[in-house]
Amino acid sequence: MTAYLIDKIVIIGVGLIGGSLALALKQAASVRTVVGWDTDRENLELAVQLGVVDIAADSVEQAVADADVVVLAVPVRSMLAVAQNVIAHMKCGAVLSDTGSVKQTVVSELEPLAQAGGVNFIAGHPISGTERSGAGSAFAELYRGKRCILTPTINSNIEALTLIETMWQAAGSEVVRMDIVKHDRILAAISHLPHMIAYSLVNSVSSYDRYEENILDFSAGGFRDFTRIASSDPVMWRDIALNNRESLLEMITQFEQFLAELKQDIDSGDGEKLFEFFYRSKISRDALLAQGVKS
Amino acid sequence: MTAYLIDKIVIIGVGLIGGSLALALKQAASVRTVVGWDTDRENLELAVQLGVVDIAADSVEQAVADADVVVLAVPVRSMLAVAQNVIAHMKCGAVLSDTGSVKQTVVSELEPLAQAGGVNFIAGHPISGTERSGAGSAFAELYRGKRCILTPTINSNIEALTLIETMWQAAGSEVVRMDIVKHDRILAAISHLPHMIAYSLVNSVSSYDRYEENILDFSAGGFRDFTRIASSDPVMWRDIALNNRESLLEMITQFEQFLAELKQDIDSGDGEKLFEFFYRSKISRDALLAQGVKS
Repeated sequence: MTAYLIDKIVIIGVGLIGGSLALALKQAASVRTVVGWDTDRENLELAVQLGVVDIAADSVEQAVADADVVVLAVPVRSMLAVAQNVIAHMKCGAVLSDTGSVKQTVVSELEPLAQAGGVNFIAGHPISGTERSGAGSAFAELYRGKRCILTPTINSNIEALTLIETMWQAAGSEVVRMDIVKHDRILAAISHLPHMIAYSLVNSVSSYDRYEENILDFSAGGFRDFTRIASSDPVMWRDIALNNRESLLEMITQFEQFLAELKQDIDSGDGEKLFEFFYRSKISRDALLAQGVKS
Repeated sequence: MTAYLIDKIVIIGVGLIGGSLALALKQAASVRTVVGWDTDRENLELAVQLGVVDIAADSVEQAVADADVVVLAVPVRSMLAVAQNVIAHMKCGAVLSDTGSVKQTVVSELEPLAQAGGVNFIAGHPISGTERSGAGSAFAELYRGKRCILTPTINSNIEALTLIETMWQAAGSEVVRMDIVKHDRILAAISHLPHMIAYSLVNSVSSYDRYEENILDFSAGGFRDFTRIASSDPVMWRDIALNNRESLLEMITQFEQFLAELKQDIDSGDGEKLFEFFYRSKISRDALLAQGVKS
């Protein structure tokens, strides 16, 4: 008889991220029981129907009472309220983790709460996702070969950290430990900024009103791929934009400067500079593929 | 014995666009002979080896002399010089077309030349492509189910127009006729602007130097998809940026305004406006898929 890595895990928020973690851990036989909870009752029922979780919790308080691990996979701005409720009912020494895309605010809010409640908090962020949301979009392979960043602090319990690390490895991820501030800055650059740009691009193009037709009808595959991430969950991205404000503003400003430089070169018709700008970008982007980036 | 739509076609520039047209027409049995020409001798030889074209021209002047149709699939800033040479050697009444992504400059330069040389010029632009270039990236299905825009003028010969229209239909495209200025504005919005943004994004992120590592290493599939178009040919995009200057500057300015609005909402922490901004974009973008956009 194999011992499970985790006997009972409760996943709060059984959408793409939480649901895929549940499926991956079940597939890896790393958990005996996965209990799901979601404020969206319909989504929770779907998660049970699809076998994403084993059972739906009747109440979150009851479900977490004997859980070994509780994972919060909810929008970042909901973390605090959910954590307050959950920590109050978790058993002493159990492990709380999260999947939030921003770590400074989440850690500063949740870590003291967890410490006061005798719970071990380990902050995490799996670097993967699709533009889809809800239990119906979850799949066991989402994390396979992708990075998962953990941002432990000096207060982190080492056994809890090892458990969460092993859990993400069981889900197929390569686990990386990172400084919290560095995490938020890097994610602002490689993920949050591109999302802000995609949302702005779609809004600016769909507002183009020189002609009667919706000019998006003329767009080809390039535009569709380029704007895929603009179909992501607005609540999730509202919360990220609010919680990673400083790093995101810094990156938007940096991007604006590059776009302004390019605009200037277009305006002045400087072919040499334009070529150099595009060529430099192509080299960097091609290198991404050559390095076989985790995706 | 079937009559061919075109007996002899010469394709100048046997890269992704020209090469794929050659392959599509050969597959559709719409041409008897495809002759290729390319200033990049290595690429031309590759095109012959791969069967993209039937034969390589020894000289472009000789090749076009008895051609029924000549298609220029070269960067837009090279169109004029190539056309001058080609038109001088084409037979009277033959048809010249192009695949340039910008139409105002190309038509204004090529149409008078063609008229003076007794050649019928029909401007075209297939709305498809990938980020790859060269004969090795050409494939017969590139144009299948995609739109091809033709921008005839009051001077266009109707038989030549019908021939080019039928040719693109044979390649699998849905042909649309459009006003020249409208073409350039719409393409600035749905294609040229996204490319400028992708190039600027890659340059701004790869210039981020707060940490020693190349932060692009942390990027996941979202970033890779989002920046795919930044791997496109720098010469082609230099020429587009130079030739669609006015429309492109207009669209960049419009995009800058939307991004500035978003930045302002992030700065002031206005959750309601942020949600509304993201939600509006998601609705527009999701509608793209629902409409089954040609891609």
